[in-house]
Amino acid sequence: MPSGYRHTREDVVYEEDQYELTEDGRIPIPYRKTAKYQDGNTIDWLHEEGLERERNHALQSQAGVRGILLPALDSARMWFIVVVTGIGIGIAGAWLDVLVKWLSDLREGHSGELCKAWKTWGDYLGIDSILGRSLIQAFIYVVLAITFAGGAALLVVNYAPHAFHTGIPEIKAILGGYVFDAFLSPWTLFIKALGLALSVASGLSLGKEGPLVHVACCMAYVLIKLFKEFRHNEAQKRRVLAAAAAAGVSVAFGSPLGGVLFGLEELDTFANESDVMWRGFVASAIAAVSLQWVNPFGTSKLVLFQVTFVSDSWRAFELIPWVTLGGILGTLLIRLNVEIALYRRNSVLNDWPVLEVVCATSVTAAVSYLIVFARVQTSELVANLFQECDASKDYHGLCNPTATVENIFLLCLTAILKVVLTAWTFGMMIPAGIFLPTIGIGACLGRAMGLIMQSLYRAYPTAWIFLSCPPDPSVGCISPGFYAVIGASAMLGGVTRMTISLVVILFELTGALSHVLPIMICVMTSKWVGDALGKDGIYSAWIAMRRYPWLPPVDYRDKGETGASLMKPLEEIIVIEDAVTTVGELKEILARYHYHGFPIADSHGGFVGYATRQELIGALDRLQLDETEAERQKKCTFSKNRLRVPAEERADLSEALEDSVIQLRKEVPQELVVNMFQKLNLRQILFTHAGKLTGLVTKRDVVNLLTSHFPHAAALAQQPPTKSQHSYS
Amino acid sequence: MPSGYRHTREDVVYEEDQYELTEDGRIPIPYRKTAKYQDGNTIDWLHEEGLERERNHALQSQAGVRGILLPALDSARMWFIVVVTGIGIGIAGAWLDVLVKWLSDLREGHSGELCKAWKTWGDYLGIDSILGRSLIQAFIYVVLAITFAGGAALLVVNYAPHAFHTGIPEIKAILGGYVFDAFLSPWTLFIKALGLALSVASGLSLGKEGPLVHVACCMAYVLIKLFKEFRHNEAQKRRVLAAAAAAGVSVAFGSPLGGVLFGLEELDTFANESDVMWRGFVASAIAAVSLQWVNPFGTSKLVLFQVTFVSDSWRAFELIPWVTLGGILGTLLIRLNVEIALYRRNSVLNDWPVLEVVCATSVTAAVSYLIVFARVQTSELVANLFQECDASKDYHGLCNPTATVENIFLLCLTAILKVVLTAWTFGMMIPAGIFLPTIGIGACLGRAMGLIMQSLYRAYPTAWIFLSCPPDPSVGCISPGFYAVIGASAMLGGVTRMTISLVVILFELTGALSHVLPIMICVMTSKWVGDALGKDGIYSAWIAMRRYPWLPPVDYRDKGETGASLMKPLEEIIVIEDAVTTVGELKEILARYHYHGFPIADSHGGFVGYATRQELIGALDRLQLDETEAERQKKCTFSKNRLRVPAEERADLSEALEDSVIQLRKEVPQELVVNMFQKLNLRQILFTHAGKLTGLVTKRDVVNLLTSHFPHAAALAQQPPTKSQHSYS
Repeated sequence: MPSGYRHTREDVVYEEDQYELTEDGRIPIPYRKTAKYQDGNTIDWLHEEGLERERNHALQSQAGVRGILLPALDSARMWFIVVVTGIGIGIAGAWLDVLVKWLSDLREGHSGELCKAWKTWGDYLGIDSILGRSLIQAFIYVVLAITFAGGAALLVVNYAPHAFHTGIPEIKAILGGYVFDAFLSPWTLFIKALGLALSVASGLSLGKEGPLVHVACCMAYVLIKLFKEFRHNEAQKRRVLAAAAAAGVSVAFGSPLGGVLFGLEELDTFANESDVMWRGFVASAIAAVSLQWVNPFGTSKLVLFQVTFVSDSWRAFELIPWVTLGGILGTLLIRLNVEIALYRRNSVLNDWPVLEVVCATSVTAAVSYLIVFARVQTSELVANLFQECDASKDYHGLCNPTATVENIFLLCLTAILKVVLTAWTFGMMIPAGIFLPTIGIGACLGRAMGLIMQSLYRAYPTAWIFLSCPPDPSVGCISPGFYAVIGASAMLGGVTRMTISLVVILFELTGALSHVLPIMICVMTSKWVGDALGKDGIYSAWIAMRRYPWLPPVDYRDKGETGASLMKPLEEIIVIEDAVTTVGELKEILARYHYHGFPIADSHGGFVGYATRQELIGALDRLQLDETEAERQKKCTFSKNRLRVPAEERADLSEALEDSVIQLRKEVPQELVVNMFQKLNLRQILFTHAGKLTGLVTKRDVVNLLTSHFPHAAALAQQPPTKSQHSYS
Repeated sequence: MPSGYRHTREDVVYEEDQYELTEDGRIPIPYRKTAKYQDGNTIDWLHEEGLERERNHALQSQAGVRGILLPALDSARMWFIVVVTGIGIGIAGAWLDVLVKWLSDLREGHSGELCKAWKTWGDYLGIDSILGRSLIQAFIYVVLAITFAGGAALLVVNYAPHAFHTGIPEIKAILGGYVFDAFLSPWTLFIKALGLALSVASGLSLGKEGPLVHVACCMAYVLIKLFKEFRHNEAQKRRVLAAAAAAGVSVAFGSPLGGVLFGLEELDTFANESDVMWRGFVASAIAAVSLQWVNPFGTSKLVLFQVTFVSDSWRAFELIPWVTLGGILGTLLIRLNVEIALYRRNSVLNDWPVLEVVCATSVTAAVSYLIVFARVQTSELVANLFQECDASKDYHGLCNPTATVENIFLLCLTAILKVVLTAWTFGMMIPAGIFLPTIGIGACLGRAMGLIMQSLYRAYPTAWIFLSCPPDPSVGCISPGFYAVIGASAMLGGVTRMTISLVVILFELTGALSHVLPIMICVMTSKWVGDALGKDGIYSAWIAMRRYPWLPPVDYRDKGETGASLMKPLEEIIVIEDAVTTVGELKEILARYHYHGFPIADSHGGFVGYATRQELIGALDRLQLDETEAERQKKCTFSKNRLRVPAEERADLSEALEDSVIQLRKEVPQELVVNMFQKLNLRQILFTHAGKLTGLVTKRDVVNLLTSHFPHAAALAQQPPTKSQHSYS
């Protein structure tokens, strides 16, 4: 091997478009083409932590008062962002509710809560006949729905394509180290917030919860940009974003504890550091306080869907209907959603996103207008389904004891309709969350189950299964409202596969603290059933389809494989040879291969270290070499091997070596390798044997391993994966 | 260096008592003296995981049905233990309550809930004069208290010394890998449960919460012993114990969610694996269901201290008094407790543990009998302090509006008294938890603060600070019962330094869901204040004092140190030399040094691998060498270096090499080393440079680093630390 690098090997993809040859056939010097990280990269946590560490030591070692004040200021900046984001998202969430309410009222034209003098469209247009009024009402209902949704889609498609969808999968990926700055731009923030209000008001089957988390993260990112300290540190950025995400959940569900736990369980970020959790805790609390302070509808309550119960206790036999509610339908919804997303990408729909939204809205509006429970906003429906019947109120005949069969039929029909519409809507080019529609579907099914049980109880109050109920059915034993809560829990468990955070969110949402046990049991069952039917929750499925480099926090168990089967062997790696590779060759490597970093070995394969491309570029720049042939022929040295090269031929780059390099033997169990990537946020692990470099594993390899069971992995990736990206991007 | 090992160096402690020389001056062969792990060791997670992995693969590769059934059976065993432990601790918790109630009623002699025909001692003994009745009542009160507490202490001291104290610090250490089987024995289980009932009934200032967690873990351990699959795997054992601990918290507080979160935050175990969390979730739910099913007092409620509020909302100005409640007193309690524990160890008290308990009980009973709020069981006091006043009930004059000043004084006096008594009691030779007394102290202070605010509001209803309250003070604005909840939260936050799990436990305990925000804010503030005054919570302080090898999940930040300053350099390590060390020398090393494992290097210092003492012993045994001199002179080989030795002189031990060996460069930042130990449950990391072994860091080194800020570290350790234990046990 005469030259110091190995780009001539066939198994390394030659990225032709990355550079052009100069006239004399040599490779030019645009080796510093890339910024630190471009969108689509994965950050190197250990490297970033190292930079942060150096910065902190520099601050602390300042003389006198500056040595105390500067670190304090640094911490104050962090808290400033956390607090302002919390306040901001609280207020934004409150005003979003107001905007949605106003737009929805406009659509239905009835006397809204915001304006008592409001007239229906029929009244306003002075139409007298009942048929005419109904028709004009329906017409305006559908037209305005289309206008809102179409407007949202136009905004998203033309101005901020990253503002579509829920945003949770991207945020999970970003918090795990994915670089995706465009996703958090101020422009995305604005379009996502505005588009969210429009799409929610359009009556499509979607929720505001996920997008609110995205909005919160965008807000934090705008604030981060104010301070250069954070702008340049990707690890610190992500710590602040984690707190913002918690605040977003807190506002979306009025659930400050749920926000923290969502961060803990679903975003899997706080597990790394307790002070990150701590900031999430503060951001969550502040966001909830702001929301309560703005108090859009004068209720001053965080509990959105207050439940009331016939009795304060529940009976063991009720667990039987409850556990049947879980899992299967959730998995079905995920499958359906994935299939529709794949069809969308591979069909003509891909070219007409706005038209698709308009069609979906027309169908949704038309069908929903016919079914009483589907016509109202899902949040209103859920709030009513969670309520018990009493004499004073009757919600669209739901409490009419003579129409039980009709109600059960209608509720099931609504649930099926919503499953189809939600699976279609979630993934169109509008901001759309999955939480609320899922709650709606589950609540319909649960209420239907509750009505069935109630009818059975009324018909056979003395049957053995109802022995624990009072024998007089007029006293009340079955609480259909709570069955709706259970249904919602089970459905959410099946779709998101969350456990603890879901239970907390649910009872912060409903206030059903005394019934926490059945909620826990049903969430458990539905996760079990769901996991048996299909491994991934809906967010994981989307992450895999879009091929974000995110490591699911699963317990990976290998079948006896070792690190050897996961690693790229030495032959497929671009290695810089200590005291052999020349400066010219190094520049060529840097220009040609856009890998994040390169291992360094001596001429016998002995492992010397690892250097990132950025540090190599920096070290080269500091040497201030000119472009003469003599300078280009200098040998790059990184270690004591420099002694093999005459002093005048050396280019000492040893400062480019990374301190935090982890080495393993290739006999190590694969599960330990995966585990290390999951827990330590690594970007690569090097394999050595008796001091010789034997291979390399990158995060991408581990991600590919963990998503290999999912048949549609990378189906929606932005650009089709090339081999080199697969191997070690 | 002629001989293959380095025991002659002066800096390595020579453990004389570990072996005796034979007549001819050589070291004999009791090299397999130790069991796999003895109490006081730390398990090697990676090694245990490797064993478990091999076992699983062996099961799965069985032919036909066995290959499916055996793994399923394995999983069924695990779930069996989890479910039975959940049911067991639920029932045990319920009956413990009944026993305590009966014993307490016996002590006070009044008409108990359990037995309506109960007479007071005065009636029973037929004493007529009021003075006589009071005296006999007080006498019996004190005598029975002393009998109960003394009995508990006698049981603990004579039969199960590990049953003293709360048990949480030990369980944290065990779950982190500490081996302490005696702590979980059936005998400890029995004594702890019985002693707990006696000590709670004695009226000492202690709670049942922590000890219940210990009891749950003992139960699980008894079940584990039934199955040899778990008996031999320390990692699996700990996974089951984690679920049991969650179930214990669930029963102790009637808080199934709190149990899971306690496991997550305080025991720091679930972060590692989601299926462990999952089992904790199930165990918690089952334990709570069992508790509710036994339902000792016919209330069928999990919410123990139901709060009632004057109004459902709170006002911003109330945050001012609330945040002042946090932190300082909690830290004071910890300091006082630590000082008393140190004094106890170093004074004559150490030799008279039962007498100390008797004295403490006398003092507690005598003083408490004088103060009305201290006389009742703390749980009853707390339940009443959390209640609002209304016309129908008055608790010991607490609601008498003319006695406000007296009440405030009495409440503060009770709080101070309880601080002193609790600091004394927590650490005596009886089972004793810290949660309930802490809640009691906080509730007294909070209620006092509430009474002060209420009086101010009644006196100046139109003052600017009360602008948000109704101007008519008779309507009610301040809710002293909720101030008591806040006080309890703040005090608990200060003492335990828990955050999220504490908030969840508190509102599962009180049902105060609508007030979750102020509870969060106060827990936050009090943790902040506490952390500023002293870094450790009370459990961490005890862990440090008893010198358990437990890594606190803190974010360790170094000041620029690298791995080099933490590691033991090569000169201080016992290294086995590949193809140099003879079998005889190896046996000598194994007999002489009771380290868990030894690095292996070739004669030039090139790193070959790491082998545990157990694997070395196993490999030696499999070679079936006899004790002839020729056999003893065979060279131990581990790698290709065997080629340097003639075939007939080799003893091939390469199978003893560990697969999971992590190597770092010594330039790595110290915080990464600490982080790796925290996240990956490591026992050691090896340092290499250019293929040469340069040093070793063990868990003990990291623990010492992380407890170095605590002045009384190891003050209560069982045996005084020797240098060798410090270095790498």
